[in-house]
Amino acid sequence: MDFYLELDGSGALHVQLTRALREAIMAKRLHRDTRLPPTRTLAHELGVSRNTVLAAYEQLRSEGFIVGKVGSGSYVAPVASMRSAPPVPKQVPPPSRYARRMRSMHHVSRKPSSTTLRYNLQYGEPLLNPKLTSTWRRELAHASLYTPPGYPRTRGVPELCQAVCDYLGRRRGVRVNSSQVLIVNGTQQAMALAARVLVDEGDSVVVEDPQYLGAREIMQIHGARLVAVPVDEDGIDCSKLPRAAPRLVIVTPSHQFPIGSVLSLPRRIALLEYAVQKKCWILEDDYDGEFRYDAQPLAALRSLDSQDRVIYVGSFSKVVLPSLRLGYMVVPEALMKDFTIAKWLSDLGSSAIEQVALANFMATGTFERHLRQCARMLKARRSALLVALEEHAGAAIEVVDSDAGMHLAAWLPDYDETRLESLMDLASTRGVGLYSLSPLFLRAPARTGLLLGYAGLSVAEIQAAVRILGTCLRDN
Amino acid sequence: MDFYLELDGSGALHVQLTRALREAIMAKRLHRDTRLPPTRTLAHELGVSRNTVLAAYEQLRSEGFIVGKVGSGSYVAPVASMRSAPPVPKQVPPPSRYARRMRSMHHVSRKPSSTTLRYNLQYGEPLLNPKLTSTWRRELAHASLYTPPGYPRTRGVPELCQAVCDYLGRRRGVRVNSSQVLIVNGTQQAMALAARVLVDEGDSVVVEDPQYLGAREIMQIHGARLVAVPVDEDGIDCSKLPRAAPRLVIVTPSHQFPIGSVLSLPRRIALLEYAVQKKCWILEDDYDGEFRYDAQPLAALRSLDSQDRVIYVGSFSKVVLPSLRLGYMVVPEALMKDFTIAKWLSDLGSSAIEQVALANFMATGTFERHLRQCARMLKARRSALLVALEEHAGAAIEVVDSDAGMHLAAWLPDYDETRLESLMDLASTRGVGLYSLSPLFLRAPARTGLLLGYAGLSVAEIQAAVRILGTCLRDN
Repeated sequence: MDFYLELDGSGALHVQLTRALREAIMAKRLHRDTRLPPTRTLAHELGVSRNTVLAAYEQLRSEGFIVGKVGSGSYVAPVASMRSAPPVPKQVPPPSRYARRMRSMHHVSRKPSSTTLRYNLQYGEPLLNPKLTSTWRRELAHASLYTPPGYPRTRGVPELCQAVCDYLGRRRGVRVNSSQVLIVNGTQQAMALAARVLVDEGDSVVVEDPQYLGAREIMQIHGARLVAVPVDEDGIDCSKLPRAAPRLVIVTPSHQFPIGSVLSLPRRIALLEYAVQKKCWILEDDYDGEFRYDAQPLAALRSLDSQDRVIYVGSFSKVVLPSLRLGYMVVPEALMKDFTIAKWLSDLGSSAIEQVALANFMATGTFERHLRQCARMLKARRSALLVALEEHAGAAIEVVDSDAGMHLAAWLPDYDETRLESLMDLASTRGVGLYSLSPLFLRAPARTGLLLGYAGLSVAEIQAAVRILGTCLRDN
Repeated sequence: MDFYLELDGSGALHVQLTRALREAIMAKRLHRDTRLPPTRTLAHELGVSRNTVLAAYEQLRSEGFIVGKVGSGSYVAPVASMRSAPPVPKQVPPPSRYARRMRSMHHVSRKPSSTTLRYNLQYGEPLLNPKLTSTWRRELAHASLYTPPGYPRTRGVPELCQAVCDYLGRRRGVRVNSSQVLIVNGTQQAMALAARVLVDEGDSVVVEDPQYLGAREIMQIHGARLVAVPVDEDGIDCSKLPRAAPRLVIVTPSHQFPIGSVLSLPRRIALLEYAVQKKCWILEDDYDGEFRYDAQPLAALRSLDSQDRVIYVGSFSKVVLPSLRLGYMVVPEALMKDFTIAKWLSDLGSSAIEQVALANFMATGTFERHLRQCARMLKARRSALLVALEEHAGAAIEVVDSDAGMHLAAWLPDYDETRLESLMDLASTRGVGLYSLSPLFLRAPARTGLLLGYAGLSVAEIQAAVRILGTCLRDN
């Protein structure tokens, strides 16, 4: 054999041989019209079976790399030369304006490696209800047997749309029919679809300040001009809404993210009035409206919206499993077709088996039982956090009052951002993950504070974490 | 009681009562400072329990609609008036350029109601492998027990990325490492991400003509200028690629959709050369490269791409279940970060349990066993279709030769589009669903033909369907 062949050891032998010959031909180490060794000869030289060589030749023939018939000999086909150009460099200029904005605006959160943290007070850690795993396993197994195998309906499987309607009517005061419900892959997709359907590059979008990072980035990178409106203890300050009509106002009325305030009734009405007057749309992100501890959950903003200006978004990530990427939108009738096509263009529709499992989980009442269990667990964790903060950090920390959700905001009046960074570093070395509120502000905030997520830790873990936080506050 | 309250019968009684009172206050049927009836009185008048009324009053108090304490009386709060504006009309002008393009370009496929069809020769109907349901059920149930509950990694769960690498190396000749793999929700999402990352409004994108409708619409509605390049029996005609550099070329090299030709080796090389020369990207949609009947599957175009210009896209929809919305991309290193952020902005990441189930399904070899079973079933169906077409429609139909895939293209030399429409209508009345190739062409095609999907029908059903097609050809 007058050419060098090296098998790379990856995959079946005939696949390796095919690859090696293909590369030799492409690289012109085997020139056109070269006669390949007879299969027996090559098999002998390589120490493989003749069938391996036959399979490789057959494959190369069907791909056009060699010509001729087994028996009469195989010849390298006249394969055009590939110019030897250098490969694409590892870095290229941003290929589009969107990519340019991604590269400059996407915020990689400062995230201590959670493996080294004993206690991670990060918002978004899942609340683990031990009963849920076995229930969910049963629902999935069951759903996999009777979910239609074809492409799912883009709007969502009918059972889930109906279950969402029933749930919204019962728990969130929102009366809709299932033709207004669109199933999406979580809040993130809902926001992305809203950007696509409603916003052109350069259009303005109102966000609360501070706000959820996902919403901000989706809109900014989409090309929207963001108008940040400050938040106080009654939610977004409607007197500061811009005079020029925005395309969209994104709000968290039930439990402002991350501050925790509830949008007051006068402001709810003012906001709806504003939308009517400016002919803009409101996106209500009801991300944890379900978890309210000292009263029934408040009715959603959407329930007051007689003008059909509010796009309502809910998520199952927080209330079932973050690993399950499902959520839902209630879409004004005038926009339903646009949102449905946008969903089709994004991914055709959400995976069906999980939708059917969720629909059954909701229809049987198991979901709301699970919600009540979660609310009890969260309430206990929140109380433990408040008590521990009072005991170990009372002097240094000012907790923002809020009786809902899975997190608390807390100001540190004596801290600036630099000192907070060093507190976070110290806490991290002692095994506690702390997170600053600052990245969630679009304008530089007047105050420095922490976002304390408590859903992922038990009462005992919360107590231990805050005890360590106390030592860090003393030693920092 | 001097005001009228009607409970609407939807949900728990206290929820109905809360809603009715809220609406009466919003509509000014209950004016500010009006004293609400004592709870006992109202309970008696409505014939409900006092606790129901108490719960409703408590809720309205926490929402700010009423003031006062239980015992001392409840009063309607000074709720600002909502201007009585007409609601948003059912039709509004397109809210964005994207929405305008959606409304004008989204093609609702002419789809006979499949419930009335006995035999639907639609492409995209699922291939049902009876063994798959129980296997998939087991995999899902198993995966649900040990999938981490938190937000999934945006790029895809590591096990699945690895399983995809191994599979691509073994079956598609593509050697990559798992850091180049991005898990997406099917081919549709892969295309949508490519549009986002690579294409600005007005940029040009090359598509094959005819082409997959999803790819065309995603790019068109995104705002790309499409350049349609004709296809012949060797795939896309590279001599007709535009001189001005496009951003992206979308191709189906393994089995051109819908014509079925295989991109020849000289053209593969010409296409790669073109991409290097024009500094553009190639998107290889390997939608059914797996199913090839008379030889091993051909290596993917990506396997020849030493320049890292090819974005490779594969889907599990066709080979596992259409209802499962999962696929994968192999992304050039220079673009990996952009695509990952774009995926994050779209939906954070794909649902984790299904990814873990799929990873295990692949790692244990069950997937490739399933593929072999499917290939056997498809081969038998394809043969049955060819034989039946020869027998019942031989004179009228000219089948495009192809030994791969889940569909055949067939020309009807004596037909124009009008006559084909009437054939399709006649077939539909006789229970057979037929589909024209024409909608898949961007430029008006020179010929008229049918796209015959055979994956969803058994051999006997295919024979019966083609027998009916034969009668329709005679009677039309």
